[in-house]
Amino acid sequence: MPSPLPPSADPYVIFMPSGRRRHVASGTTLLEAARHMGVEIESICGGRLTCGKCKVRIEEGAFSKHGIVSSQQHLSAPTAAEEAWLRQADDENMRLACNARVWGDVLAFVPAESRAQKQIIRKSAGERVIEVAPTVRQVYVEVDAAQLGEHRGDWGRLQDALAEQWRLQNLEIDLPALQKLQSALRHDNWAVTVTVYSESEVIDVQAGYVEGVYGLAVDIGSTTVAAYLCDLRTGALLATAAAMNPQVAYGEDLMSRISYATAHRHGLQKMHDAVIDTINRLGAQAARQAKIRRRQIVDAVFVGNTTMIHILLGINPVELGEAPFALARREGMDLRARDLNLHLHPGAHVMIMPAEAGHVGADNVGVLIAEAPYQQDDEVVLIVDVGTNAEILLGNKNGMYSASSPTGPAFEGAQIQFGMRAAPGAIERVRIDAVTKIPRFRVIGEERWCDTWHDTPPQHLVAGICGSGIIEVIAELYLQGLLLPDGRFNSAIASERLVWEGARGAYILATPEQSASGEAILVTHEDVRAIQLAKAALYAGAKLLMKRAGITHIDRITLAGAFGSTIDPQHAMVLGLIPDCELDKVHAVGNAAGDGARIALLNRHKRREAEQVAPWVHYIETAVDPEFQDEFVRAIHIPHQRDAFPHLQDILPVAGQHPVPPARARRRRTARGRRQS
Amino acid sequence: MPSPLPPSADPYVIFMPSGRRRHVASGTTLLEAARHMGVEIESICGGRLTCGKCKVRIEEGAFSKHGIVSSQQHLSAPTAAEEAWLRQADDENMRLACNARVWGDVLAFVPAESRAQKQIIRKSAGERVIEVAPTVRQVYVEVDAAQLGEHRGDWGRLQDALAEQWRLQNLEIDLPALQKLQSALRHDNWAVTVTVYSESEVIDVQAGYVEGVYGLAVDIGSTTVAAYLCDLRTGALLATAAAMNPQVAYGEDLMSRISYATAHRHGLQKMHDAVIDTINRLGAQAARQAKIRRRQIVDAVFVGNTTMIHILLGINPVELGEAPFALARREGMDLRARDLNLHLHPGAHVMIMPAEAGHVGADNVGVLIAEAPYQQDDEVVLIVDVGTNAEILLGNKNGMYSASSPTGPAFEGAQIQFGMRAAPGAIERVRIDAVTKIPRFRVIGEERWCDTWHDTPPQHLVAGICGSGIIEVIAELYLQGLLLPDGRFNSAIASERLVWEGARGAYILATPEQSASGEAILVTHEDVRAIQLAKAALYAGAKLLMKRAGITHIDRITLAGAFGSTIDPQHAMVLGLIPDCELDKVHAVGNAAGDGARIALLNRHKRREAEQVAPWVHYIETAVDPEFQDEFVRAIHIPHQRDAFPHLQDILPVAGQHPVPPARARRRRTARGRRQS
Repeated sequence: MPSPLPPSADPYVIFMPSGRRRHVASGTTLLEAARHMGVEIESICGGRLTCGKCKVRIEEGAFSKHGIVSSQQHLSAPTAAEEAWLRQADDENMRLACNARVWGDVLAFVPAESRAQKQIIRKSAGERVIEVAPTVRQVYVEVDAAQLGEHRGDWGRLQDALAEQWRLQNLEIDLPALQKLQSALRHDNWAVTVTVYSESEVIDVQAGYVEGVYGLAVDIGSTTVAAYLCDLRTGALLATAAAMNPQVAYGEDLMSRISYATAHRHGLQKMHDAVIDTINRLGAQAARQAKIRRRQIVDAVFVGNTTMIHILLGINPVELGEAPFALARREGMDLRARDLNLHLHPGAHVMIMPAEAGHVGADNVGVLIAEAPYQQDDEVVLIVDVGTNAEILLGNKNGMYSASSPTGPAFEGAQIQFGMRAAPGAIERVRIDAVTKIPRFRVIGEERWCDTWHDTPPQHLVAGICGSGIIEVIAELYLQGLLLPDGRFNSAIASERLVWEGARGAYILATPEQSASGEAILVTHEDVRAIQLAKAALYAGAKLLMKRAGITHIDRITLAGAFGSTIDPQHAMVLGLIPDCELDKVHAVGNAAGDGARIALLNRHKRREAEQVAPWVHYIETAVDPEFQDEFVRAIHIPHQRDAFPHLQDILPVAGQHPVPPARARRRRTARGRRQS
Repeated sequence: MPSPLPPSADPYVIFMPSGRRRHVASGTTLLEAARHMGVEIESICGGRLTCGKCKVRIEEGAFSKHGIVSSQQHLSAPTAAEEAWLRQADDENMRLACNARVWGDVLAFVPAESRAQKQIIRKSAGERVIEVAPTVRQVYVEVDAAQLGEHRGDWGRLQDALAEQWRLQNLEIDLPALQKLQSALRHDNWAVTVTVYSESEVIDVQAGYVEGVYGLAVDIGSTTVAAYLCDLRTGALLATAAAMNPQVAYGEDLMSRISYATAHRHGLQKMHDAVIDTINRLGAQAARQAKIRRRQIVDAVFVGNTTMIHILLGINPVELGEAPFALARREGMDLRARDLNLHLHPGAHVMIMPAEAGHVGADNVGVLIAEAPYQQDDEVVLIVDVGTNAEILLGNKNGMYSASSPTGPAFEGAQIQFGMRAAPGAIERVRIDAVTKIPRFRVIGEERWCDTWHDTPPQHLVAGICGSGIIEVIAELYLQGLLLPDGRFNSAIASERLVWEGARGAYILATPEQSASGEAILVTHEDVRAIQLAKAALYAGAKLLMKRAGITHIDRITLAGAFGSTIDPQHAMVLGLIPDCELDKVHAVGNAAGDGARIALLNRHKRREAEQVAPWVHYIETAVDPEFQDEFVRAIHIPHQRDAFPHLQDILPVAGQHPVPPARARRRRTARGRRQS
């Protein structure tokens, strides 16, 4: 349809919000114009009016010198097929960019949902933006019909169509896709939607125009396996599913699973099958939630610690149990889901994220790309991911250092007499009155603090103490003078809450009336020791990294993992869990490893980034460093040096503030060897 | 060990039988010298004295101007480790090239078994030489041990070793190999033998020095599946195993199998499973024969007609049953054996040879690379592979043409009243006495001709007539005047062997006494018609190709396939089965398709050649060519034109030689449409 007013000069097109602008030849479609200017507008069908993805809003068509004219006169009129799409849009200024030819000046606004490079906000982690650039995408093509006397074969003709219509060259096709190719091509008159992996392989061919490719990010923790189902086109998180890692049945900590794999005839196979089975169930569950079919999941990214990844891949983890802790493979790996017996799309790929070293695995690389400290200009960032082991990352773009600290499971409530997982009834918050030494606390599943329970009985009585609770109570005990810096209870303070068995004190945190079992909940001398050892290992790891990196000051601390999300930064610092830092620069980011898996799932460039960054991080082996042991011993006290924590000056007790028992000979306690667990 | 007589000039080294020669730096090993000169000496261990493959015979060390000296003085003395190898050699002039340093002039003979590029003679096909350059090879490497503070991982260290010791770069590793990597490395002090696919992927890692990689070439015929087990290092054919294609149960010919795949719910799956199962059994059987384990088979090449390959790949062959006969895929395909449920090495690959067009499949491409007519300079070659369909190749390096002729199964004994497969008791040779018109014949399984049976009864009485027998008897009937050129029996000849049912004659080939059933074995009017139609289709196909290629004269005819091996060229030409050619230029080559598979298995360059040549051949679709029908009609007579066969001038009957019945109105018989079977 020719323009009623052919302009003398080539029309001028501006795209918002990018503001890119250029003269284009009259008759160019808005989609072609956009591609010319590097403005990425989504299009799956390539201008065939079957996908409706390239909607743009015509803001203004009259910024030329010719005076004000109606915008629509500067574009070819919508065809009937386009109008059918536009009726769904609820906005009369919308057009499909592929079908609107430019006859005069146009200003077009590309709404977020029409941008090819979508961005999503990752809410859990400080509102970080993820650019959606998935490894798998769908394209719609129309293929030449087979003809007598032409022998390219259906795959040859599809290749030619993909090269011509989508510039996809040198493709291969996976066998399951080839098996259905001929019927798909003939079902809808030689029009098909092709699912392409990494611009290099066709993994599915479906008749006609079809939408929907999904991906699964999986974080395989020692205790919990979490799966995140994402729409690969929009980046949206559609469903989350989590389950206990069934390998717990074969050993609570990593070391016992390594032993199980080695000592039992089919130990590795059993644990491998158990985790695969769990992932299959989580995939099915997430697909049900999102109302998609499991076989629409075409891509997956897995993270986990090195032992979990070894078992996932069917590799005996025995080497990770003893020095020199050799990985089978440090690089990431691209596998067929079917080779792992995963029930996803038959052509689905699985990317295993790379590891850094024997004790810093794909999960830490997930944290790495989620937080991207290696992009920091000058700020020095410390990232602590506390699980059964603590992985520590330190640095910025000038250099990154990592280590694994053998904290043991105390922070998770294990090795604590009344310790428990973070579940209803677990004490998670504690304050101790400075004068009465009586505690106030709050349990998970109950909003109110315990000092208001007398009005109405709480929903959950006290069942135990979880990780964050034990941190807080020990820090509070120290702040209120009930604990001495060396971790002994203070016999110089008289309190009904302090009980003694010889020289070993204990503190009554919850009375029998407050407790579900009717038994008092105590914090014991041994509990304090266990936490001291764990926090000393963590602190020593961080301190060793600072030394190796030549860093004396930390600008920002990020606490990753479930435990990191619940602990109070101030108490963590009082206890000497983390080095000194401005308190408002300490943040929790939740499951950053899972976030990293999700980022790699949605953005193929981030996968390459992970491969490049993982070996670039300097890994410091704490197990063999004599300085680690020195730091560890020095970090046993609570907090070991007052002047190491300038940001706690106003909080920490000063000499003479509390009564202290008579001095006694100081005993050295040496660091334990590495404890893999 | 320094030379006792350091020569003034650099030593001069000659390698025989190539005759390559050059001065080399004193102290160079013979292996290094050979590599420098492009003389390929085999070495698996890379000079570590673990493989003993680089043995050379020192023929002469004294061709310098310094006079005659003992050869051994011109080489460093053997070390104890080398001597251990040399003791096995039974030849005191042998040395290991990797361990013999050149201090003076040396003439070294490289025996065939030490050549890296081995050659084997393919006996079945005119003594053709195959260069052994397999896709899979083994290399022995010594890897750095894992150390604390070094985090490349075992795979990283293996990659580094392979790059350094074998210049193998950018390798990947298959999951099953990765699963055993760590234990293999530690089992024999970090020395391993690595199996490498296509210089790009590690598919196995075994502890220490290990020898033995094997491959399977498989020809999937409609009737028979044949497997050839080869040593990939030496090229030797170790075992052959064949079995009936179990798909015969679902349909004798291709068309009925296509129908079965389409009409029955699990028809495709059943036929797919059946052939996979057969290949697995043949692989196991061949491995047992060769005394190797089936999982040592690391590579495979499959050929077959397009329907067989579709079913093998789990692709419904329905499109091959009707115009335009579209292939799912024309290109060859590289698959994992495990993706086809083949029980070979867990990392084994399978290469499916490419096809040419819907009716000329991977089996014909096998024939193509086995016979390599595209390398012929000027001679024009016609290759006929007679099976249920006949595939025809024509041309030379200036152009190749192919076609499939719808001969139907008459040549295989089907559609013939007393027809049968080539099995004991089948008449395979026939001569008819010019005067008495009494036949002499020979059956399979009995050396003697039937006219000597009266002395001792034969081992097998006559059970029927096989393909070659029917060709001979019809040609003889024509030569002796019993058949007229139009295929009718000649009523003008009186013979007790001719019987009549109205105008339709028949010939008594075997009497009731000679027959196993006690019933006379006849050649009927309808049998002659069936053979006429089949031979006309074959001849018309060849003739059409000649026209399209602009060729009038054929220099050489190659008969491929089992049928081609048993028929007598002269009778075939008398019948007009093949075009005119000098009789001594007509040769049978046996299963050339299987030979082609074996060649592609042993030589990776031939695989690429197949990929390049297959689409380069001009495929002529007989089904749509009106000239094919004209040629077909013209070829119905026996032989249709006397002057079309100058090489048969002395044999063919001349006008008036035999009595003929009175002329009758000539009826045209039109060609049938394509019959896929």
